Amino acid sequence: MSSNTAGRLFTFTTWGESHGPAIGCVIDGCPSRIPLAESDIQPWLDRRRPGRNAQVSPRREEDRVSILSGVFEGVTTGHPISLIIENTNQRSTDYQKLASIFRPGHADATYRHKYGVRDPRGGGRSSARETAGRVAAGAVAMRLLGHFEATRSVEITAGLVALGGVQADASRWDDRTIDQNPVFCPDAGAVDAMLAAVEEAKAAGDSLGGVVEVRARGVPAGLGEPVYDRLDGRIAGMFMGLNAVKGVEIGAGFAAAGLRGSENNDPMRRPESGKLGDAFQTNRAGGILAGISNGDEVVVRCAIKPTPSIGVRQKSIDVNLDDIDLDGVGGRHDPAVCIRAVPVLQAMMATIVADFFLLARTRNQPEF
Amino acid sequence: MSSNTAGRLFTFTTWGESHGPAIGCVIDGCPSRIPLAESDIQPWLDRRRPGRNAQVSPRREEDRVSILSGVFEGVTTGHPISLIIENTNQRSTDYQKLASIFRPGHADATYRHKYGVRDPRGGGRSSARETAGRVAAGAVAMRLLGHFEATRSVEITAGLVALGGVQADASRWDDRTIDQNPVFCPDAGAVDAMLAAVEEAKAAGDSLGGVVEVRARGVPAGLGEPVYDRLDGRIAGMFMGLNAVKGVEIGAGFAAAGLRGSENNDPMRRPESGKLGDAFQTNRAGGILAGISNGDEVVVRCAIKPTPSIGVRQKSIDVNLDDIDLDGVGGRHDPAVCIRAVPVLQAMMATIVADFFLLARTRNQPEF
Amino acid sequence: MSSNTAGRLFTFTTWGESHGPAIGCVIDGCPSRIPLAESDIQPWLDRRRPGRNAQVSPRREEDRVSILSGVFEGVTTGHPISLIIENTNQRSTDYQKLASIFRPGHADATYRHKYGVRDPRGGGRSSARETAGRVAAGAVAMRLLGHFEATRSVEITAGLVALGGVQADASRWDDRTIDQNPVFCPDAGAVDAMLAAVEEAKAAGDSLGGVVEVRARGVPAGLGEPVYDRLDGRIAGMFMGLNAVKGVEIGAGFAAAGLRGSENNDPMRRPESGKLGDAFQTNRAGGILAGISNGDEVVVRCAIKPTPSIGVRQKSIDVNLDDIDLDGVGGRHDPAVCIRAVPVLQAMMATIVADFFLLARTRNQPEF
Amino acid sequence: MSSNTAGRLFTFTTWGESHGPAIGCVIDGCPSRIPLAESDIQPWLDRRRPGRNAQVSPRREEDRVSILSGVFEGVTTGHPISLIIENTNQRSTDYQKLASIFRPGHADATYRHKYGVRDPRGGGRSSARETAGRVAAGAVAMRLLGHFEATRSVEITAGLVALGGVQADASRWDDRTIDQNPVFCPDAGAVDAMLAAVEEAKAAGDSLGGVVEVRARGVPAGLGEPVYDRLDGRIAGMFMGLNAVKGVEIGAGFAAAGLRGSENNDPMRRPESGKLGDAFQTNRAGGILAGISNGDEVVVRCAIKPTPSIGVRQKSIDVNLDDIDLDGVGGRHDPAVCIRAVPVLQAMMATIVADFFLLARTRNQPEF
Repeated sequence: MSSNTAGRLFTFTTWGESHGPAIGCVIDGCPSRIPLAESDIQPWLDRRRPGRNAQVSPRREEDRVSILSGVFEGVTTGHPISLIIENTNQRSTDYQKLASIFRPGHADATYRHKYGVRDPRGGGRSSARETAGRVAAGAVAMRLLGHFEATRSVEITAGLVALGGVQADASRWDDRTIDQNPVFCPDAGAVDAMLAAVEEAKAAGDSLGGVVEVRARGVPAGLGEPVYDRLDGRIAGMFMGLNAVKGVEIGAGFAAAGLRGSENNDPMRRPESGKLGDAFQTNRAGGILAGISNGDEVVVRCAIKPTPSIGVRQKSIDVNLDDIDLDGVGGRHDPAVCIRAVPVLQAMMATIVADFFLLARTRNQPEF
Repeated sequence: MSSNTAGRLFTFTTWGESHGPAIGCVIDGCPSRIPLAESDIQPWLDRRRPGRNAQVSPRREEDRVSILSGVFEGVTTGHPISLIIENTNQRSTDYQKLASIFRPGHADATYRHKYGVRDPRGGGRSSARETAGRVAAGAVAMRLLGHFEATRSVEITAGLVALGGVQADASRWDDRTIDQNPVFCPDAGAVDAMLAAVEEAKAAGDSLGGVVEVRARGVPAGLGEPVYDRLDGRIAGMFMGLNAVKGVEIGAGFAAAGLRGSENNDPMRRPESGKLGDAFQTNRAGGILAGISNGDEVVVRCAIKPTPSIGVRQKSIDVNLDDIDLDGVGGRHDPAVCIRAVPVLQAMMATIVADFFLLARTRNQPEF
Repeated sequence: MSSNTAGRLFTFTTWGESHGPAIGCVIDGCPSRIPLAESDIQPWLDRRRPGRNAQVSPRREEDRVSILSGVFEGVTTGHPISLIIENTNQRSTDYQKLASIFRPGHADATYRHKYGVRDPRGGGRSSARETAGRVAAGAVAMRLLGHFEATRSVEITAGLVALGGVQADASRWDDRTIDQNPVFCPDAGAVDAMLAAVEEAKAAGDSLGGVVEVRARGVPAGLGEPVYDRLDGRIAGMFMGLNAVKGVEIGAGFAAAGLRGSENNDPMRRPESGKLGDAFQTNRAGGILAGISNGDEVVVRCAIKPTPSIGVRQKSIDVNLDDIDLDGVGGRHDPAVCIRAVPVLQAMMATIVADFFLLARTRNQPEF
Repeated sequence: MSSNTAGRLFTFTTWGESHGPAIGCVIDGCPSRIPLAESDIQPWLDRRRPGRNAQVSPRREEDRVSILSGVFEGVTTGHPISLIIENTNQRSTDYQKLASIFRPGHADATYRHKYGVRDPRGGGRSSARETAGRVAAGAVAMRLLGHFEATRSVEITAGLVALGGVQADASRWDDRTIDQNPVFCPDAGAVDAMLAAVEEAKAAGDSLGGVVEVRARGVPAGLGEPVYDRLDGRIAGMFMGLNAVKGVEIGAGFAAAGLRGSENNDPMRRPESGKLGDAFQTNRAGGILAGISNGDEVVVRCAIKPTPSIGVRQKSIDVNLDDIDLDGVGGRHDPAVCIRAVPVLQAMMATIVADFFLLARTRNQPEF
């Protein structure tokens, strides 16, 4: 593990700044002979892309991915898969002003403090643009999972279940709904209120937070490496490491703190299928017991803070630590970064499952 | 990183099962010439120990730590510090019964499924006993932090802020209170209600969940390694990987999802001290911006599920996946594992800060 | 990887100093359900043990290994295997004198310079005693290899092929001979001359270097992870990292530098067995092509310097960098450390093959 | 560490195949604020480039490096430095024939066996072209070393000291000579004979092996991380992992095996400079004691096999393991790959020293 590489066996390294010539991702550890083409990755990037609709950042990027290595005649070769996306729409004329100020809630102050230098154009390395690499890695991970018998039926989905004050009804989750609305909400009944909340916040020059839920079905029991590389630990570590995420919970999550053991334990009954995952009568565990998948659905929720870039006046300081007042942080921003976090977290989950699947193959687990 | 090793530079590896001859911890990467003795570690273990009082597991362990290597004439040598704690009070006569059943909410089913074999005595490797190693590593980490100028004033504290339905009042947090009550609660006003809740749950053969808050003060700005080894990501990954933790939040956490940018951003004003950490007028960020410490207090909360071992009847299955009814899970257990999680999470935070401090020394950060 | 941990999936961490209370080894990543007992490990340690005969260090250690974790009812559990060996025969009364001087060819000067402090008793951490952990890990690795179909027929052997000026005849290598003489020489015809050389050097208060050859047969084709974790690279890195090793060569080794391509390439012919490894008509490659095992015998030779501890007078300096003359370095030492390096290198090869076998299982290699 | 990433703190990941659209290198862990431009890297690549002269492969590549990230306004930002080199001169029309045969001494058989698929164009991933990334990383490492006080005077040089049967005279080593002849020989007196040997081998359709020596001066004492990440171990692991290297020795190397302790130990005398490195009166240790640099010159030699691609007829097999006769392996090849290995090994040494320097900063070594 190094600072810009995620994973142990299925690893990916991202590089690039928002307004440099390109960004990219190098995937290492992907087994050979897995069919892979740019057309497997592009749709994932298209979902994440800014400029997709009125609810997200108006910056329009083609985000056209090219595979530069690791694929030959349509299949992976077992060697690093280098993916590149050119930055075609950098607009960074006025970054000099941004270079000397610290925007509240942003990376500006800490990046400057840590590195002593900072590429201020569009957030530089701290830009959400970096997440394109995560999404691309997730697309490759899905191909990997689809290739092996034990993971062929893994399905990973994600949706926005809260936005501003609007809550989706979890019981009305419908995967098909997610891509039929611009906020990736799985509950059709909540979409209009969410859209209205975004419009209202935009009009006020303000921004909204939200909650993203990720669900992974068909994850085989037995993934996770206790005690320091547990499935729940890895998910939490990766997800909390995404920009703007301030909380992660699995299964009953924070609600479990208020339950009794008799309420929180998931009762088990003999599974007709013979599969452990079908034994659980409830899923307050969120599909993970003692850091190992139990075969039930893995359910994770992330709290995402409101976009720190807002139009209203804010108190801040500059690089000399002197007071400044910010009247609207310039640039093009999402009013609610939680929306675009949906496909990113979904993709990251895929990379995690793929990595633990490979790790499980090094164990004496005959089904893998 | 391997499954039983945490950290990148200041690493620790734990080994041992609940009822084996001993458990232990090997710390690697600790710089040399740091004063260290068993008496620096023992008090930390004593706080975590079962049998300390009526609120925690009645199993009584001496938990006497011995340093087997890495220290010479009172100082660290730069070589692995091997710590061992003998298991003196194993009572495992009736484990054969436990060996064939899966207790709800426990590691039984997933460990058996993954490994095909399981040491059922006292939870084996999944026992909370493993956390003694984490606590010992935390004690060493505190010595390390105390040795260097830049981290000398780091103070890490932790307390139980919710237990069952009882909430502590965060505004009444007092570090001194924490060790003056058996539930590690920082709010003296909540202690009686918490104790009553424990008694009530015990009487009912049931258990309680809770919330632990960890606070790290004096953490210098500039710790954390974006984008895949961020301070927030590492904390969440480590903390969620502790038994029974089901949620982690930093700063405003899940509440941030319901705020607007104008409410959630922390305003900054010129710090008289000249220190970045003093610029923030609020701390909804929880001391971390973009994965890097900002010099303000690092604040983390963990949701901990109720102890899965309960006395009331539960539906479960055995290793053949056949139905069984469990009438009270035997053994000696904490009615609320969240209590003993307090010193463990506190110690784990120390190891994380120490590791990121060493990582920061490899950067071009002159203050370290 | 940390400084005291070797391997990626099958990892082992050693700890302990020569004259501390014990030394040990923690093996992580070993799959579960592999039969393992102390009696599998002890014979390996016995071969390495000092005091075994007149040719090696007269220090007598029982080197009795205990398994403290990771094994339950005779099989591995998939959790860390902690091995401990107590130091029963430390004789360190006069180490104060050693503490202030730098013995030529020893770790004294660099350890002191790097760490600022040093346990001088018996070499401390730099003692050959540390290698007991490597040998124990090798014994476990052999059990692992024996457990899986693909690696069941791996045989690893090692012998001393040069000692002082005496060369063994490689064409007369006989595995059975190795344990029938005190210098682990595979050529019965060279044993007497080697023994005489040792006696002569001892009498002169001097020491001898030598060459150890390690042969691994039955290594399946396909092990190794180009381009930075190649099989040859890992072997060289591990072997050169053993005390006193100053050179490593594989197959034709340094001789290859003087050959032409037409002489050095190994011709191939259709293997009747259908196995790639049987296609090679010669083995100048030493069983490795482009960093991957080719199925032929893996052959490695290590040059080992003479024991630096000698009785003759030497010029040296002390911790203040002032001149001193050393009249015989005290303590009990091997006149030729290369002898005891034989079982150590053999064991290390086993750990490497086991680790790469597990890595190969994460690839799409159906035979594993 | 993953298969295509080298290093622990100063890491680099290479990607790309010989005849794909591009090759590249992502450097992570480089501290910020180090001046860096493409013009710092390009000269290193130019030295390694094929087509430089008659002695190396006639393939002509521009090998023009572009920095895509991690540098802003002329200094490193602390984020990944992505380097890309386009492949402008791929000539791969006839690779279909190569795809089905295994060339002796090449990666063909083992890559095919391991991965089941192989990009045969120009050697694909196993091509020497991959080493451009190593050279680029070395150039960045030199900038890093030049930036810090403790490493400012590190000088790394390398030369070809044997080619075919021709030996350079080590006592006549002159750094300036190295770039004044096409075979990077440091001994002007050996150049003509080496050139004649190359011509003769080319005329015979054959190839030559050789020995490269790398010397690192000014390496501060105290670098290296015993016992599993020693400086000598890392050098040997990295160097042996370079294509065609079959042996590595440090200092006296294989010759040490034939010496006595009294001959091999380096005597020490009080250094007037007060520097440990100046205390050694001889350097049979090659600048490394017990895995840690001792401040003296680090001296390493690598045996490099003759280029396996030759024009003379060879016995081989195809992918079906059937016999074939190869009458001259097509393509453009170096008659002696050891020549181009010179700048590659030199650059790799730079990355190793840089990485261990950063590691040493995490120790309590005040000079760093």
